[in-house]
Amino acid sequence: MEFLKTKDVKVTDPFWLRYIELVRDIIIPYQWEVLNDRVEGVAKSGAIRNFRIAAGLEDGEFYGYVFQDSDVAKWLETVAYSLVVSPDPKLEQLADEVIALIGSAQQPDGYLNTRFTIKDRDKRWTNERDWHELYVAGHMMEAAAAYFEGTGKHEFLDIMCKNADHIDSIFGPETEKKKGYPGHQVTEMGLVRMFRATGNVKYLNLAKFFIDERGQKPSYFDMEAENRHDSPQRAWFKEKTAEYSQSHLPVREQNVATGHAVRAVYLYSGMADVAELAQDESLKQSCLTLWDNVTHRQMYITAGLGQQDFWEGFSFDYDLPNDTTYNETCASVGLVFWAQRMSKLALRADFADVAERALYNGVLSGISLDGKRYFYVNPLSVWPEVAEKRHDMEHVETERLGWFGCACCPPNAARLLASVGSYIYSADSTRLVVHQYIASQVRVAMPCAEVTLSQRGDYIQSGHVMIEIETATPMQFELLLRVPGWCSSMQVAVNGANDAFNITDGYMCISRTWQRGDKVEITIPVEVRRMQANPLVREDAGRVAIHRGPLVYCLEECDNGPVLSDIALERDPQFIAKSEKELLGGVSTIYGKAHRSTPDWGEELYREARFSAAPVTVKAVPYYSWNNRGKGEMLVWIRQD
Amino acid sequence: MEFLKTKDVKVTDPFWLRYIELVRDIIIPYQWEVLNDRVEGVAKSGAIRNFRIAAGLEDGEFYGYVFQDSDVAKWLETVAYSLVVSPDPKLEQLADEVIALIGSAQQPDGYLNTRFTIKDRDKRWTNERDWHELYVAGHMMEAAAAYFEGTGKHEFLDIMCKNADHIDSIFGPETEKKKGYPGHQVTEMGLVRMFRATGNVKYLNLAKFFIDERGQKPSYFDMEAENRHDSPQRAWFKEKTAEYSQSHLPVREQNVATGHAVRAVYLYSGMADVAELAQDESLKQSCLTLWDNVTHRQMYITAGLGQQDFWEGFSFDYDLPNDTTYNETCASVGLVFWAQRMSKLALRADFADVAERALYNGVLSGISLDGKRYFYVNPLSVWPEVAEKRHDMEHVETERLGWFGCACCPPNAARLLASVGSYIYSADSTRLVVHQYIASQVRVAMPCAEVTLSQRGDYIQSGHVMIEIETATPMQFELLLRVPGWCSSMQVAVNGANDAFNITDGYMCISRTWQRGDKVEITIPVEVRRMQANPLVREDAGRVAIHRGPLVYCLEECDNGPVLSDIALERDPQFIAKSEKELLGGVSTIYGKAHRSTPDWGEELYREARFSAAPVTVKAVPYYSWNNRGKGEMLVWIRQD
Repeated sequence: MEFLKTKDVKVTDPFWLRYIELVRDIIIPYQWEVLNDRVEGVAKSGAIRNFRIAAGLEDGEFYGYVFQDSDVAKWLETVAYSLVVSPDPKLEQLADEVIALIGSAQQPDGYLNTRFTIKDRDKRWTNERDWHELYVAGHMMEAAAAYFEGTGKHEFLDIMCKNADHIDSIFGPETEKKKGYPGHQVTEMGLVRMFRATGNVKYLNLAKFFIDERGQKPSYFDMEAENRHDSPQRAWFKEKTAEYSQSHLPVREQNVATGHAVRAVYLYSGMADVAELAQDESLKQSCLTLWDNVTHRQMYITAGLGQQDFWEGFSFDYDLPNDTTYNETCASVGLVFWAQRMSKLALRADFADVAERALYNGVLSGISLDGKRYFYVNPLSVWPEVAEKRHDMEHVETERLGWFGCACCPPNAARLLASVGSYIYSADSTRLVVHQYIASQVRVAMPCAEVTLSQRGDYIQSGHVMIEIETATPMQFELLLRVPGWCSSMQVAVNGANDAFNITDGYMCISRTWQRGDKVEITIPVEVRRMQANPLVREDAGRVAIHRGPLVYCLEECDNGPVLSDIALERDPQFIAKSEKELLGGVSTIYGKAHRSTPDWGEELYREARFSAAPVTVKAVPYYSWNNRGKGEMLVWIRQD
Repeated sequence: MEFLKTKDVKVTDPFWLRYIELVRDIIIPYQWEVLNDRVEGVAKSGAIRNFRIAAGLEDGEFYGYVFQDSDVAKWLETVAYSLVVSPDPKLEQLADEVIALIGSAQQPDGYLNTRFTIKDRDKRWTNERDWHELYVAGHMMEAAAAYFEGTGKHEFLDIMCKNADHIDSIFGPETEKKKGYPGHQVTEMGLVRMFRATGNVKYLNLAKFFIDERGQKPSYFDMEAENRHDSPQRAWFKEKTAEYSQSHLPVREQNVATGHAVRAVYLYSGMADVAELAQDESLKQSCLTLWDNVTHRQMYITAGLGQQDFWEGFSFDYDLPNDTTYNETCASVGLVFWAQRMSKLALRADFADVAERALYNGVLSGISLDGKRYFYVNPLSVWPEVAEKRHDMEHVETERLGWFGCACCPPNAARLLASVGSYIYSADSTRLVVHQYIASQVRVAMPCAEVTLSQRGDYIQSGHVMIEIETATPMQFELLLRVPGWCSSMQVAVNGANDAFNITDGYMCISRTWQRGDKVEITIPVEVRRMQANPLVREDAGRVAIHRGPLVYCLEECDNGPVLSDIALERDPQFIAKSEKELLGGVSTIYGKAHRSTPDWGEELYREARFSAAPVTVKAVPYYSWNNRGKGEMLVWIRQD
């Protein structure tokens, strides 16, 4: 079962179209300026200049992290998706020039990495644990495949084939090759995309090699370190160095997500890719086990991942602190990648539920409404003073920034938003599956003929979705509709007649001979719901999170005053949702009854408890939209009386 | 107004006598063995051996921190108090031998510090910011004065006079002397004790010099660093280096407690000493301002201080996290020192209230009931798994340890417990003040004649205290009785007749001509109370702490099962206190009605809120007694329905 690609899906949904156009009109030009160091007051990138230096077009020193090139790769991937949706010859020409520049920076043997071309050429492939050479290559491969798919142009793909061939000459099962694997995963996904784009099974095999080899003993990273006369341990992780990159155990023996969260979800995505393409059942089982661990034990309600600043990653089951968490935007982006791949391994709606949760919450919170400011870290509770003053909160920014020294998140979110159409539908010869309710048109080549499916409606506001099928001749196939995990009941009418359809693993199946003009009307009650966390999540005890449709809500200081912790919802808050078109790009706000302590406190720090409270009305806004009105407190999990 | 000393006060209170005897019978011998590296399975001390090496009696390398000598000083100070209470010729002989050893390690010029005698002799007095030479001297001075007061023997005092004279030749206002001050305070208190023991005003003046000089510009620590060709910033504090040691501003301009908490309270204690003795009104005002900041904004209900692991110290107002806090045992010990000195500056009961809060809670929690295991860090909420697994919790031990590499806390708590009698009474020519209700006898030389006051009763259990006055001839004076801040009303009867007496600043004043055998009966209702924190303390919102008398209570996993966060007290918990003589050395436990979530959760991490709860009875034990029954969760601030 394949997902329909960005080029097959025309998104018309106003909510997502706004983001797709934001990427096209604002984010791509803005990030281009940043990559060229032409934006004042933000962290310097140096990424384009590094390529010019590596290509011999300019003199200078390499600037930035060892993985600086990957920002250019993600920018190009974003451009590739955007060009599909909105052709733009000028932008395409610019992209072609960048690709030519990349080609000029490539070495005769296919090696491509400005850091180890500009300096330390003799150190290539000596420290994959820390130096991200395979990581950078993986992002370049994804970009090249996307550009080829989007534009049909082969230059970038050729560059990356040459690079992948070079990598294949370095790593592999053959005696003379290195038995290594990426220190930071993404290469696996990149190679699989190269395989899909070229049909060259060598790339799939290399991805599988990287996955199979990870965590085998003796440790490649330790041997590499010994060869460098270096310590096998990274100073700050000590005995946890291998867990950091999920190389502590062979991947099929890993049951619990650990280490750096972005590395983890990229690995799991690559595992799912290979499990699908190589029909590897044991790898699929590992993916399912890890999925359950992450989503049932270690995921925030916003689909944030990585509970701690230490190694920017997982801690352990049910440990979900709201204020000190890391929740890197990239981790939620990667969770969408992983969820999509899981949907191909098994048709179970919780995969698309999590993808939806990530898209509407953990990913979007990483980008300001104007597209130019970004969160790297996405907590569920922010008290600006503590984030600014307490050392263990140094990783928390109280306002989105224009760029980062380590700038993985902004272009990562951009490439996902630009390709959001590719997460909506999948199909095989007998089934057409609607995973996401994002208004759009898709053309699917079914065995007999092409089907056009049009999705309209206003899912997040009213829960009303209309699907219309166009087909030249009547055709039998199953239309599978995801029943969102958050809804209490989903009503479906086909051509005006309500009917009850079987639901299997969260997908409602309408099997019939479809005629031109058949209409499916879906009604999902979009109510304000209070969510509670499993009692094993200590941080959320006695608290609820407000949810409406797929959106998690939060309280902001600008609406509710400071000291949000003082607010407790009434037992029956009588929530009212109100559409505010002028607010935050157009949102439904939620008003509810709550109380706060009465202002009868003097200077005392502690006193005998007096339970006096004053009624207040609280106003909640979607979590993704927070911090677009200045610095202030924010709270997702609200005390419930 | 002077406090009556350990030697004047015979403690008979069963609660505190148990600790005084524990120090004598267990802690002093145990710590002696540790200081001699004869205890298996605990961190090595090397402290005695360092003195033997410095004295030329043994070959070897210095071991431990630059302040390792101070552990020996605090052990000797503890011995000095214990000998007063329980003469023990063998112990006294051992102490004399240690003192002789210290004398042998002293250099001809009076310098005394094994670290910079065994090695780096040329680096003496070149890095007071980091190297603790004045700190070690301060503890030695305190010990020497205590030993002189307790035994009348002058040898140790002589050693420390020679040392103090040497220090006075190095530091001072004269042009040729260094304008420095201690990197870690305590020297100020030590010098004041030397002044009190010897009458030599030079020592008081040097203490005042250190206090006046601190924070002046240009910074002594920066100049020192420049002379060493070193950075003026300690790498891990960066621009906060001066705040760490409270040297960022002249002390009279400091309004908010900052930096390392133990350094801070030692500084403030020294400031109060000098304010009193030098009648320095501006210094007194600074002490009062800082006192209010600490106790109204930055103090835990257990009298723990230092809200963050970073610099083991203060963060900012109302930031009082319960799990990640530092709350070093030494900081609560130092708070008792400071509170006592504040009681001399002003007769305001909140000073003795805080001393009481610290003694019964934050100090005692640092020591196991058997005297041999110690907490350095004292959180108010412990989930062992998170403390063991999450990097930002690495400073939290889940069980008390037998010793520490940096072992300041165990002997610090010991010296305070051994001298607890000296915190009970103060007097001047017309007033005799009862600050603490600790059963004891005290003899006070009033102007006309000696008065003996006997305090009996069972303050923490029943709130019943009887005071009997013995005086050879009728005598007019004011008896001031502290009205504990935690009590709702205190009833007092003199010779059986209830009467109402004026209360000023928390002290009830009984002014009369006292006769031999006059009896004052005090009744304080010891009820179970629920305390709430100021709403600005975000961490405690919607929570209460159980208090009974001066004791803070907590829930332990061994009594209440795991996941204490799931427990919420009923609106009326109907608390019952129960005396359990066999439990935890004899405590009153508290039972109350509460509820927990019903066990209807499956694998889901989040679900729509269903408010179902099952009634449970919770059992609370005094906070100081926690973790004496194995490792487990602990919680002070409990959710309140």
